[in-house]
Amino acid sequence: MPVYLDHAATTPLRQEAAEAWLSAASVGANASSIHGGGQAARRVLEEARERLAAVLGCEAVEVVFTSGGTESINTAVKGLWWARGDRPGAVALPDGEHHATTDTVAWLVEREGAALRRVPLDGVGRIDPGLFEEAAAESALATALVANNEVGTVQDAAALAAASARAGAPLHLDAVSALGHVPVDFAAWRGEAQAGAGLVAMSLSAHKVGGPVGVGALVVARSARLGALVHGGGQQRGLRAGTQDVAGAAAFAVAAELAEAEREGEAARLSQLRDTLVRGIRAFVPGAELLGDPQERLPGNVHVLFPDAAGETLLFLLDQAGIAVSTGSACQAGVAEPSHVVLALGRSEREARSVLRLTLGRTSTEADVSAFLAALPDAYARAASAAARARR
Amino acid sequence: MPVYLDHAATTPLRQEAAEAWLSAASVGANASSIHGGGQAARRVLEEARERLAAVLGCEAVEVVFTSGGTESINTAVKGLWWARGDRPGAVALPDGEHHATTDTVAWLVEREGAALRRVPLDGVGRIDPGLFEEAAAESALATALVANNEVGTVQDAAALAAASARAGAPLHLDAVSALGHVPVDFAAWRGEAQAGAGLVAMSLSAHKVGGPVGVGALVVARSARLGALVHGGGQQRGLRAGTQDVAGAAAFAVAAELAEAEREGEAARLSQLRDTLVRGIRAFVPGAELLGDPQERLPGNVHVLFPDAAGETLLFLLDQAGIAVSTGSACQAGVAEPSHVVLALGRSEREARSVLRLTLGRTSTEADVSAFLAALPDAYARAASAAARARR
Repeated sequence: MPVYLDHAATTPLRQEAAEAWLSAASVGANASSIHGGGQAARRVLEEARERLAAVLGCEAVEVVFTSGGTESINTAVKGLWWARGDRPGAVALPDGEHHATTDTVAWLVEREGAALRRVPLDGVGRIDPGLFEEAAAESALATALVANNEVGTVQDAAALAAASARAGAPLHLDAVSALGHVPVDFAAWRGEAQAGAGLVAMSLSAHKVGGPVGVGALVVARSARLGALVHGGGQQRGLRAGTQDVAGAAAFAVAAELAEAEREGEAARLSQLRDTLVRGIRAFVPGAELLGDPQERLPGNVHVLFPDAAGETLLFLLDQAGIAVSTGSACQAGVAEPSHVVLALGRSEREARSVLRLTLGRTSTEADVSAFLAALPDAYARAASAAARARR
Repeated sequence: MPVYLDHAATTPLRQEAAEAWLSAASVGANASSIHGGGQAARRVLEEARERLAAVLGCEAVEVVFTSGGTESINTAVKGLWWARGDRPGAVALPDGEHHATTDTVAWLVEREGAALRRVPLDGVGRIDPGLFEEAAAESALATALVANNEVGTVQDAAALAAASARAGAPLHLDAVSALGHVPVDFAAWRGEAQAGAGLVAMSLSAHKVGGPVGVGALVVARSARLGALVHGGGQQRGLRAGTQDVAGAAAFAVAAELAEAEREGEAARLSQLRDTLVRGIRAFVPGAELLGDPQERLPGNVHVLFPDAAGETLLFLLDQAGIAVSTGSACQAGVAEPSHVVLALGRSEREARSVLRLTLGRTSTEADVSAFLAALPDAYARAASAAARARR
C-alpha cells in the first residue's frame, strides 16, 4: 500500500458511509413517486437532510443536495448573480479561490458582463474583512473559501459574514475543505443578518469527509434569492432539479456526522503529525518554508515551499517511492501551471512551482510521516540536482 | 413486497452495478491526481467510459459523465444555446418533452430571450420529421425525446437526426427512457452529418437501466460546440467540471452493458406482459384506452386512459392494495397537474387527469400482472364512483 498524503484531494470512503449507501440504494424507488415505495425513499432522504443540517448548523429545508462541491459553488455563485436585482454588477472575489469559483466567475465576466472586485490575500493567505466589506458593498455578491484547499489557511468566516452583511451583499462560503476539520456553523456565522445580505449560501462536498464522490450540498438560507443552475422537475425548492440521490444523501449524512464527531480529537492528532512533518522537513531542508497561516490553518495541511526543487519533480520521485502527495489542487493536476494560490501570497512564478502539499486524514499514521521523511532526502537531492541542471 | 409497476421512475439497482460501485469506490483516490493512486482511479474511470461508449455507439472521448439525465439535458440544451454563434435565436421544441427539457427551455426564453419553435405531436405522440426540420431550420438548436417517458412513444431518431442535419441545426436527443429498451446508436443516428449540424448530443441516465441514481452521461460529438454548465477544474474536455465520480461511472457502465445484452430478450418478454395487462384492463374497463403509439412504443410501457376515473385516485387505491404505479413522470408527482404529454396528444384536461402509467422492468413477472389485474376492479369501481360523486 502506498503512503497516502493527499487526503485533501479525496479521503477514503468510510465503511459506515458505504453501508448507508447500499442500504438506501436498496429501497429502489424514486423519492418523488407518490406510492408507498416513493414515500419510503423520501423518508430516508429527509432523514439524511435533517442529520446533515444538524452537522452544518442549518435547517433541513435549507439543505439542497447536489452532485458535489463544484456544482454547489456553480449554483451559488451563478444563482446569486442571476437573482441580483438592482445590486451592482460585480462579484467580490478574493485571490486564491478554488477553480470551481474562479472559473465560474470568469464565465460570469465573459458571458454575463460581470465586473470583478478582487480582494487581495496577505502573505499567509488571509482576507482582510475590511477590504472584503468594501468589495462586497460594490458587488452583487461576495464569495470566499472558509479554508484554502492548497495552503490550508482558515479565514474568520464569521467576520467575513458580518462584513458582507454590513455591505448589504449576499455571501457564499465555500466550506468544502473546512468541513470535518474546523468548526462549520451556518446559523452562527450568519448571525442576525437581514434577508438577502450576509451569509446566504454554503457549499459542501461528501468525499472530503469520507462520503462518496458525486454527492454534495448547498445550504441556501430560507430568505435567500437564488436562481437555479439545473432546471427540471422542481425538486428541492426548485433550486436543483433531477431525481434525488437518496443513497448519496444518506452516505453523506453518515460521513459528515462521523467526521464532526471525530473532529476535535482528529484535529489534535493530525496537528501533531503535521508538526512532526514540518520539523522533519526543515531538519533536512533548512530553507523549506511552510506556506499559509502557521496558526489558523487546517490541522492536516502541510504546504511547503522547497526553494531549490520543482514540486512536480518531487511529486514524481516520491510517487516512485510509494508516497502520494500533491502540488496543489487535484483538479488542476496534469496541467503544469504555477499555483495561483501561491502567486496570490505574493510569491514568484518559480516559487509557485516549487511547492508540495501533504494532507493528512483519518487513516494517517506516524508510520506515514516516518515513511515520507525517510523518502524525502533522496527525492529532494535528485529534484534539487535536476533543478540545478535546468538552471545551468 | 409491493408489486412494483413503476420501473420508468426508477428501476432497482443491479447487484453487479452495486458491486462495481463498491469496488471502484475502494480505489480511494481522485482521478485527477497525478500519483499512482490517481492513475489507478483514472484507469477505472476510462475503462468505464470506453465500455459505456461501446454500448452507446460513440467514441469514449465523446462520453461526458454527469450527475444524471437532468444535468445532461441542461448541459446540452443550454450549452448548445450558448455556443449558437449566428444561428437563429430560437429553440425547436416538440410538445410533450420531459420537464428537464421544457423547464430548461423556459429558462432560456425568460432569461436569455430565446424564441420557441414548437413542433406538435400527432395523436399517438409522434413527431413529423418534416415539421421538425422546418422548426430546426429556424432555430439555434433542436431537441427531442427518443422515447416519451410518459406515453412510451418511440420516435424515428435517425429521421429526426437527418432532419436536423438538413436544417443545419445541432440536435440533442434525450435517450434517458430509451436506453436498454430500444436500440440506441449515436454514430448510426448521427450518420454523415457535418460538424455542428445533425445529432451532436445525447442524454442518458444510469438509474433507468439498473445503475445508481446520481449518475448520467452526455454524449457530445467530437465536432460539437457546446458551452459548459458547470465550470471549474477543466475535467472532461472542459464540458463538466468537478471531481469525477469513478464509482458511479463504473456502476453505470456495468448496468448499461447488462441492459443492452438483455434488451432484445427483455423486449419480447415485457411486450407479452404488457399485452396481457392491456387485454386484462380492457376486459374489465372496455372504455379504457391505450395512449401513445400502439406499435412504436417502449416494450414495458402501458399508459392507459380510464375515462371515468381520476388517475390520482386510482394510484392511491392501488397503492393501498400494495401496487405501485404512476400517473406520469415521477418528477412531477406530488403536483396534481394534468399531464402536459396527454394534453399534447390533443386530449382534454379531464382526460389528462384520468391516466395511469404502468411500467415494467427486469424484475417484473406474470405474478405482478395478475396482482394488478386482480386489484383493478375494486380500485376502479371506487375511483369511478368517487369521480361520479364529484361530477354531481
